[in-house]
Order: sequence, then structure tokens, then C-alpha cells
Amino acid sequence: MASPDKSSSQPKSPAPQSDQKTGAGITPRSVSYSDWYLDIIHKAELAEHSAVRGCMVIRPHGYAIWEKMQRELDDRFKATGHVNAYFPLFIPLSFLTREEQHAAGFAKECAVVTHHRLKTIDGVVQVDPDSKLEEPLVVRPTSETIIWHQYKNWIQSYRDLPILINQWANVVRWELRTRLFLRTAEFLWQEGHTAHATEAEALTETQRMLDVYADFAENVMAVPVIKGRKTPGERFAGALDTMCIEAMMQDGKALQAGTSHYLGQNFSKGADVKFLNREGKLEYVYATSWGVSTRLVGALIMTHSDDTGLILPPKLAPIHVVIVPIYRKDEEKERVYAEADKVKAELSAQGLTVKFDDRDNLQPGAKFYEWESKGVPIRIEIGPKDLEKGVLCLVRRFVLEQPGETPEAERKRRKSFVPRAEAIAGIPTILAEMQKELYLRALAFRAARSRIIDSLEDFERFFKQEGGGFAWVHFAGSSDDEDQLSKRFETTVRCIPLPDQIPPEAQGSGTCILTGQPSPQRVIMAKAY
Amino acid sequence: MASPDKSSSQPKSPAPQSDQKTGAGITPRSVSYSDWYLDIIHKAELAEHSAVRGCMVIRPHGYAIWEKMQRELDDRFKATGHVNAYFPLFIPLSFLTREEQHAAGFAKECAVVTHHRLKTIDGVVQVDPDSKLEEPLVVRPTSETIIWHQYKNWIQSYRDLPILINQWANVVRWELRTRLFLRTAEFLWQEGHTAHATEAEALTETQRMLDVYADFAENVMAVPVIKGRKTPGERFAGALDTMCIEAMMQDGKALQAGTSHYLGQNFSKGADVKFLNREGKLEYVYATSWGVSTRLVGALIMTHSDDTGLILPPKLAPIHVVIVPIYRKDEEKERVYAEADKVKAELSAQGLTVKFDDRDNLQPGAKFYEWESKGVPIRIEIGPKDLEKGVLCLVRRFVLEQPGETPEAERKRRKSFVPRAEAIAGIPTILAEMQKELYLRALAFRAARSRIIDSLEDFERFFKQEGGGFAWVHFAGSSDDEDQLSKRFETTVRCIPLPDQIPPEAQGSGTCILTGQPSPQRVIMAKAY
Repeated sequence: MASPDKSSSQPKSPAPQSDQKTGAGITPRSVSYSDWYLDIIHKAELAEHSAVRGCMVIRPHGYAIWEKMQRELDDRFKATGHVNAYFPLFIPLSFLTREEQHAAGFAKECAVVTHHRLKTIDGVVQVDPDSKLEEPLVVRPTSETIIWHQYKNWIQSYRDLPILINQWANVVRWELRTRLFLRTAEFLWQEGHTAHATEAEALTETQRMLDVYADFAENVMAVPVIKGRKTPGERFAGALDTMCIEAMMQDGKALQAGTSHYLGQNFSKGADVKFLNREGKLEYVYATSWGVSTRLVGALIMTHSDDTGLILPPKLAPIHVVIVPIYRKDEEKERVYAEADKVKAELSAQGLTVKFDDRDNLQPGAKFYEWESKGVPIRIEIGPKDLEKGVLCLVRRFVLEQPGETPEAERKRRKSFVPRAEAIAGIPTILAEMQKELYLRALAFRAARSRIIDSLEDFERFFKQEGGGFAWVHFAGSSDDEDQLSKRFETTVRCIPLPDQIPPEAQGSGTCILTGQPSPQRVIMAKAY
Repeated sequence: MASPDKSSSQPKSPAPQSDQKTGAGITPRSVSYSDWYLDIIHKAELAEHSAVRGCMVIRPHGYAIWEKMQRELDDRFKATGHVNAYFPLFIPLSFLTREEQHAAGFAKECAVVTHHRLKTIDGVVQVDPDSKLEEPLVVRPTSETIIWHQYKNWIQSYRDLPILINQWANVVRWELRTRLFLRTAEFLWQEGHTAHATEAEALTETQRMLDVYADFAENVMAVPVIKGRKTPGERFAGALDTMCIEAMMQDGKALQAGTSHYLGQNFSKGADVKFLNREGKLEYVYATSWGVSTRLVGALIMTHSDDTGLILPPKLAPIHVVIVPIYRKDEEKERVYAEADKVKAELSAQGLTVKFDDRDNLQPGAKFYEWESKGVPIRIEIGPKDLEKGVLCLVRRFVLEQPGETPEAERKRRKSFVPRAEAIAGIPTILAEMQKELYLRALAFRAARSRIIDSLEDFERFFKQEGGGFAWVHFAGSSDDEDQLSKRFETTVRCIPLPDQIPPEAQGSGTCILTGQPSPQRVIMAKAY
């Protein structure tokens, strides 16, 4: 397994080379997990590095996946009463420092705008020194401070509450070590910022949005997640409580897929936002914030894909079905194309997105590779024989593994010849099955790489010899103790799972594997992205 | 009529005051057009200034309109074969200077990032002087240069073309004089950037997207537009040809509502993007770019609204119907609420967005004002008497003016009592009528404020005494001549209309009103936003 830092450096152009790539041009996971990840992104044309250090270009296929995610999330936000708005890209430097913890966390690696004009001096375009801003502007790393400054205008009484606003935006956190989708200087995200009259209501909102994220991850992304809270050391800077969903990638590492923060009155105090409560008294407003980002595309890739390329859950696939025509003679081409057009129309009428790959400069085999590497769930091959027999040849992007099966046998199992009408009518069902199978496969993978661990020796063996994964351990140490484990094993407490997230065999109290102190419940420790 | 500069200064808080506001709290257009515009925005809660100079906050109601615009535009882009992608926010300074004309146009008032870290020095958070970037980064004012740099990786042969990409993004152009939606330092927009193998194909694309914009403006925004080309002096910096759509606002001024540029090979040369053409020769790629922005929300406001508040074409209304309950006793309330819930459900089932205003701390009259000022097309008032009679009271946001009619009479005409089933079934038809009426009203307004003008004297009278509007004139002057007219009358050539955009009475050649030189066709001159 590759070390986490190996591939997190700057642009590689062309894509990482390896002598051991598959026929699809992808480094197998077993050879180098991090090269595999970059190969998938490269082959599927999802993203690439740009000329600007740390900033990525999201290519059309990658962006189409993000758009599908946005639509699904946005629908859920609106269904829970939220509306969208837009706040400025820039934050005055002084705003960032209004909340002490927040400043400590975010007033660090930022893009800072200091001037507002360019000028040609001695024939060279450069920054005009006379255009220096009185106060530097920080490109938003997150928007709590600028948004709460605005909320001050909108909130006078409890009747103005709650405010349930979400923003889709780009944010910038200067990063030296970047990795496409997972960690980039600029990334796209949504950030919800809500204002409430009571602590109870704000806490309910924090939990509600965590549930929305978990529902989206499991039912749309087909990524099983564990809901929990962060330890104080891992909390969002300025939050009283940070809830999160944690997913397991195929290298056994955890990936934080979404966070929902209870901010208490920290930001309303920072921006001096008080309201007249039902009892007629002035009180500071209670806040939450919550967000997910383009990092989810990275999570999606690393959860489902294989050594042939990207695998997408049908609900997020920009193309559900690709039709590849197969013919030799012109007369065959004509009939095959006519049938392809008809099949496309019939499937589109069912709400599916269908691509008819009619490029005539590519052999069918090359097309198969291309669409498989891009994760299209179903391929239909149409040839003259299929026409004669009245069948369609359906090829699934994947089938669930069967122990000991040869690649050859698996390939056969992916392919089926189905009477035409039955095939057309049955594709939505197949897609729904595939969606479910991906989730179950990821769930089984996580189960296989999760371990209940009760001693530091077992912990060490799990992470040093057995590949690691999610360790369910009792841990009652301090932040310093956590740092100590992190230095030895690269592990951190990913979350303190909510009670209903703990499997029966992991329930109950015990003693800390490091300090021997009593612990009320197990936490999840893992290496993480 | 207010001068264009009067309101274009910085944040006013609270909203502009006037002694002559209407009952709805809005300065009438006849008193101050610019105050009227700001009052509409304030009352409808569309946007407001932020703490960051020149940057606006788009409030939920304003953003919901923008979202509707986005959806409609995005559907049209996709239907014409385009896909979305995302490119970096930052542009290395040197990139901006790669295309000479572009540099002259855009390497000016920009937000420039010069540092990447903040640091606490002497207890104060400030820019870390040690974090100075080797090359300053400009926050994108437009993305041609960074995108064409990336296209270089994607284009080798004619088989890689065309590339038809659009980006939804924020851009920044430092502005000293800002006006909400119309001119702000940061704004939201979409920018299409396409790459083609031939000039002919790129020219077709330029025209196609202009047509898409015109279709959107007229059929969705209900804003009539004239399609034309810009004079060389008004072209996009780096374009060989800039096509535009021009709309007329209610003060007779023109507003450029969208542009589509043919860029020739200027940007492919700047970024050195060549391709192997069908003849096997290396050639520079042909380019277009096209965009519309949140400025369209300003155009929408200024085209349709009245002294009562915002008026929205139903296709862009975030709420189509608002239901206001009217009752005195608790027993009435119960019945009225039950009916309101049912009506809401029945209308929602037809795909309409319905708001039931069940706030019990507001009188019906206050609710009427609020939703009228927010531009909701139809209000349904439900009271006990309506229940008894089996009718719904429908109130349209507007009816077409009838000459000499009193406000009282107009108010009556807006209101109708319709048998329940008929009302429910008929609302989509009423909305479609309203959509059409808004377009026709704007068209009639434009006709009334357009003039065919053949002498400088008439031109002067039109703009100095008669309120101005669109002047259809023969103009064959130079850029300097254009500047001269601009200084005297604040007018510019808004566009050289496409042949099919010229009304019969304005067709044909003639002589320039300024220079007396022969002119092949009339152009439109107007004051402009």
C-alpha cells in the first residue's frame, strides 16, 4: 500500500507511469493504491491539475457527477426547508479574527488579496503599488464570519428565526500537498448556515443535516457511513460540537464525507447578533453550519472503482447506458444504426440518459474500454445477429465477485442476451440492482476491514501487519495521547459513533487501550484521508 | 429621470429615503428611477450590499430567481450539445497578458492575490510577509486565458474538436461605482468557451448562442431584445466580433443582456493551441466565448416592475401562487386553513409552486403588500364566504393598463371570483397569459420609445427633451465620432442590428447623422446601463 504522501505532490503530466498497468491502462490497486486512484481519474477524464499551484480543473465527466450530487443534495436541503443564497467571495481580514477559535483554525494558509489594480510599468504588466487595499481581503476558506455579519441586519426578534440558508460556492484553503478531489487549494462545496432561537432547535438542525448527509451517502452514493462526533481536537474551529459521517475507502482508510457543526453562540457573539426572544429578552442567536464538497467525488471513486476504471452508482451516473454498434458492411451499419436510434429513444423515454457511440474512427473494443473506464453502468452491443434474433446484448459494468472465479468467467457473467422488449423494460430494474449491490459490496468490505480491538498489541498488529481498517477501540486518552497514537500508527479517532451506529458486539463500556482508564463506549480509530 | 451616477455609489443603509414613497414603501419611477430600482430590491429582499466594497449579497428570493434562470439556460446549453466543467478561480498574472487586446481590456482593475498566509505578529493577525507568491494571481475577471491553457492538453487533432464547454462561476472586476445586480465587483455568471476546427463552425456557434440568449430573454424573461453586433470600440477585448442582445429598460435606457464573441485564433495563438486538420496540416484552433450574468436579474426588475414592487414573469417566479387566509373566529380559521391546504395540494400537483402564508402575527393586508412587492403572480384569498359560495378569489399581480383607468378600477379588474374547480384548473392558463402580456407590454413600451431619426437636431431633441429611448439612426462615424456623441448625449451605438431585426420602416441605406457619410444600414443609439 502506498504511503499517503507519495502521490500528494504536484502535477504529473502525463499520468503516472507504471510497468504493471492493466490492459485498461490502470495501475492495479495491489501495486499502488495512489497511482491507481490517479489513473482512474486520468482515464475517466474526471479532473486534472491546472497551471495554478494546488488548483484543479474539473473536466466535464467529473463535473457531471458533481452536478448530479448537487441536484440530489439540493433537493434534500429544500425538502428540509432550506433556501439558497450567495455571499461574497472575500472576507475582510479583521472578520476572520472575530471568533477566537475560528481565527486559530482558519487565519493561516489563505489566499490574500492585497491590491486591486494591474498596471503596465516599463512595458511589463504588474501589480500597481498604488492600488494597495486598506484592509487585506481573504478569499473565503469558509463563510461563517461574513455570513453572520450579514445576519445581523436580518435578525431582530424570534419571529425572524430560524434562518435556514445554504450556499453553493468555491472556497480556498492554501494547501502545499494536494491530491485531486481530496485536497486542493480551491474546491467547490456547499455550506449551510442556520440561525435559531434556541439551543434545542439548533441541535436538532445539526442532527437533521447529518442525517441528510448520511441518507445521501448511503442511498445515492452507495457509500456506507458511520455517524458520529469528533473529539474536541478534531472539531471545526469555533464549533461546540462537530458531527460527521465517516466512510471506508478500499485501502482501509477513513474519509470524512460530511460534517455538521453546532456552533452555539460563538459566531453570533463574534458578530454581535442578538434577538428579542419570546420572553422579550435580548439573547445571542444559536447557530449551525454544515458542508460537503467535491471531495465526495474522490470518496465515490475510491469506494467503488476497480482495476478496469471508474464504477459509478447508477443514481450518479451521467450516462446510464451506452450503445455500441457492431457491423462490418455498410448495409449492416444502416440496420444497426436504425435499431440503436430506436433503442436509445425507448430508453430515453423511461428517463434514462443514453449515449449512442456512433464514432466510426474507433473499433468496438476501444469503445468498450473507454466507457468501462468512465463507469457507465450498462453497455448495449448491437450487431446484425442480435437484430436477427430479436435480442439485445447487455453488459453490466460489474457483477458481485464470486470466490475463486476467473476473470474470464466473471466477464461472461456480466454479459447477457435478453429478448428485446424484456431488455428495454428491465434496464431500470438492473440499474436499481446495481445501485444496491454497490452499497452491499462496500458494506461487506467495511465489515471485513473492521475489527474490535482491546489491546495496544492487537492494535499495532492490525495497522502494521494486517493492512488496517476501522479499529473499534476503547479510548479515554487526552488530545496528547491521541497525538501519540497518531505518531506511532498514523491513526486518529475518526469519530465517537452515535449509539445506534455501534454494532451489538462493540457495545458497552470498557478500558482505554492506551491508558487503561475507564471508557463509556468504543470509538473508531483509523488512518484517514 | 435620475442621472445614471446618482445611485451608483456605495452602500446605503437603510434603503434610500424619499418623502414621496407609495403605500408599498417604494419611490415612484416618476420621482426617481434609480431610487425606485433600489426600493424594489430592498422591499422584495433580492439583494443588499455587503461589508466588502462592491460585493453584493444575493438574498434567498433574488437567488431563487437566479436559480430559475440558471436551470432554463443550462437546459438550453445542454440541448445544444454543451457540457459544464470547472476551471480555477485564479489566473497567473502572466496568462492575462498573452493576448494583447485582452490584456489591454482586462489587465486593469482586478483583485490580485499576492500572499498565501496570515500570521499573528505582535498579537495581531496580519499578512505574513514571508508568504509572498512568486507570481501574483489574479482573481478571474473572465476565463479565456486559463481555459485555453488547459485546452492545449486536450486538442491534438480535428477529431478532438469541437469542445463545447460552459462554466458557471463567480468572477471579479474591481468596480468603484457599483449598483446592485447591474455592476458589482464580484458577480455570478456563466461563460461558454468553445473550440472549433473551422472558422465557419465557430461563427455558427457564435450565432447559435446569441439565438439561445435571445430565446431565453424573450420566452422566459419576457424581455424583448434586439440582436446585433457591437462596433469595434465596444467589442470584447480580444474578440474579432461581438454579438449582443440589447433590451430597453423602463427609463428608455438600453441594457446589454448577453454577448457572444467570435474570437478567431487570438486565444489559441496566445496559448499555442494547434491541431492537425483534416488535410493533415497544423492550424490554430478557432474559438468562441459567450456569457450572461446576474445582471439579468437587474434587467428583469427594470423591465417589468411597477410602483408597487417587483413583477416577475411566471416562468421565473420562485412562487407562482400565494394563498392568504382570511378569518375572524377560530372556527373559521380551522375551515379556511383546511381549504387552503387542499388548494395548495391541488395546485402543487399541477407542478406549481405554492406558498400558504399561515403566519398569524400579520394582517391579510400586510401579507398582500409583502407578496405583491415580491412579485408573486397570483394571490388566492380564502375566507369563510368564499367557502360557502364554492369560489376562489384570485388576484393577479398586474393587468395590462387601460388608458385613463383609475387605480381603483384597475385594482378591481385584477380581482376575480371563480368557481373553485374552474379556478384550480385555470391557473396555469392565467400564468401563461400573464407571461405573454408582460412580453407584449414590454414590446409596446419599446416601440413607443423607439424613434427613427435622420438629423442631429431630432437626435438632440429626442434625448434632451423627449426622454430618449432607442434611436434608429444612420451612423458612419469613427470611434472618435462615437465618443463625441457620447460626451454630448451620453449615448453610444448599442448595436448594429442584424438584418432581420430591423423593422421595415427603418430598413435601407442613408447618410450618417453626424458626418453625412453614406451608411449601409441604421444602428441603435441609446443611453445605456
